[in-house]
Amino acid sequence: MIHSFLLVGQSNMAGRGFLKDVPMICNERIKVLRNGRWQIMMEPINYDRAFAGVGPSASFAAAWCRKNEDKEIGLVPCAEGGTSLDAWSVEGPLFEHAILQAKLAKRSSKLEGILWHQGENECSSGLSKLYHEKFLKIVEAFRRELCEPDIPIIIGGIGNYLGSGFLGHYFPEHSEVNQELLEFAKKEKNCYFATALGLTSNPDGIHLNAVSQRIFGLRYFEAYDKRKHILEPLEGEENAINIDSERPLTKAEKTAILEKQFAGGEISLEEYQSQLMS
Amino acid sequence: MIHSFLLVGQSNMAGRGFLKDVPMICNERIKVLRNGRWQIMMEPINYDRAFAGVGPSASFAAAWCRKNEDKEIGLVPCAEGGTSLDAWSVEGPLFEHAILQAKLAKRSSKLEGILWHQGENECSSGLSKLYHEKFLKIVEAFRRELCEPDIPIIIGGIGNYLGSGFLGHYFPEHSEVNQELLEFAKKEKNCYFATALGLTSNPDGIHLNAVSQRIFGLRYFEAYDKRKHILEPLEGEENAINIDSERPLTKAEKTAILEKQFAGGEISLEEYQSQLMS
Repeated sequence: MIHSFLLVGQSNMAGRGFLKDVPMICNERIKVLRNGRWQIMMEPINYDRAFAGVGPSASFAAAWCRKNEDKEIGLVPCAEGGTSLDAWSVEGPLFEHAILQAKLAKRSSKLEGILWHQGENECSSGLSKLYHEKFLKIVEAFRRELCEPDIPIIIGGIGNYLGSGFLGHYFPEHSEVNQELLEFAKKEKNCYFATALGLTSNPDGIHLNAVSQRIFGLRYFEAYDKRKHILEPLEGEENAINIDSERPLTKAEKTAILEKQFAGGEISLEEYQSQLMS
Repeated sequence: MIHSFLLVGQSNMAGRGFLKDVPMICNERIKVLRNGRWQIMMEPINYDRAFAGVGPSASFAAAWCRKNEDKEIGLVPCAEGGTSLDAWSVEGPLFEHAILQAKLAKRSSKLEGILWHQGENECSSGLSKLYHEKFLKIVEAFRRELCEPDIPIIIGGIGNYLGSGFLGHYFPEHSEVNQELLEFAKKEKNCYFATALGLTSNPDGIHLNAVSQRIFGLRYFEAYDKRKHILEPLEGEENAINIDSERPLTKAEKTAILEKQFAGGEISLEEYQSQLMS
């Protein structure tokens, strides 16, 4: 039985870290739901845009696999870049789509948690003050619609870098949003906070870079696994980019990577065939 | 109102043509459904694998836009590589997922057609003989579940190259499957066939290459638009790769392309900003 996690929120849950900046994670025990079926995960996981990249869920899943030997984890990607809490309201298509995907996933997995990252769109016009009320409706609706009244929800903080950068003026309330996210996690049942403290961004000053996303995934996992708020960087988290890269690849993993390289036009037929044999 | 088309079948509908081999199609009148919402289409459209590439639907949509000035088309990608007709049976997750996506699309669009490409998985063990019966159940179920009893279904032929190539021995019945697809389209109401005659493949000998997919999309469109079977290459189809590349880009299209390049790490902040201004 696959143990599945629903990925929801905006672009930093979908992932915009550059794939080229970190070692690939390919682990046959990490699956992703596509078209209602599970397949071996390859990044980008949450393809909301043609430029989707590294999010927190790959290293989250790799950390989960280290803890849960011989078990399988499944990721259900439903995050959508640029979306506000209002866009996630329970009457809207994002919420409905996520519920449909999670229900499809539940047919062949046990839904174990929800990973949420959203807040950049609430950083101005007094929206931060409305976060708790709006988000509570969404959380309650997820739990109700999925018949999972106690499912853990892991809530990531937003980047402390948001006030700077060339678009920094869009985020005057970023500290307030972070405070709201933490208070929400503290107050509501089975919600846990993972801080973004010290994480850094792409040149856009908005999106977490790939190395930071690998670290963030470990913080999400620690919050989930220990059922506690993660308020400080983790000890040893600077090695996050190697979370799964020092493990020898299995035959299925080598084959999946070769298939990706060949079907994607990166290697020739001759290279593909000779490497398949080796 | 967006005019939408459901994309179903296996890998050659999803698309495995190499993106680098053809000019990009970016047209603000072509949308794609992601997470229940419409966004400007960027290839790859049907992200069933991390190596998804060019399929027939981009040039289909570009041809549709040429014919339907000032109207918008929406693509609903649900094809999944490596899938058999049995995997598409109406009790399975692929069918259910496609129905859910099409229903989400129908909330904000008019569903105008279904584009189908499948058959490589039926090319051995006598499966070709069962094609008609199995596919008819799927077609009837699509029309029934979507309350679209007369919706046109465009059925592409499979590659004549399938018998050759290093995996050619997997496809002994490829001619029989092609015959079944054509006969199906001729016999069943509002079904139209688009031949793959003369189209060529990637080095794998299985997947249509990018140039052929651009041509194939035009054939699909001709079959849809004229409501007739396309049994021969189209006149002038060799220019298919330029179907949308000679049209000047709009501001929205230029911005979308720049965002993709910047958010994907292809251009620097300085380049992005200077090009945004220009």
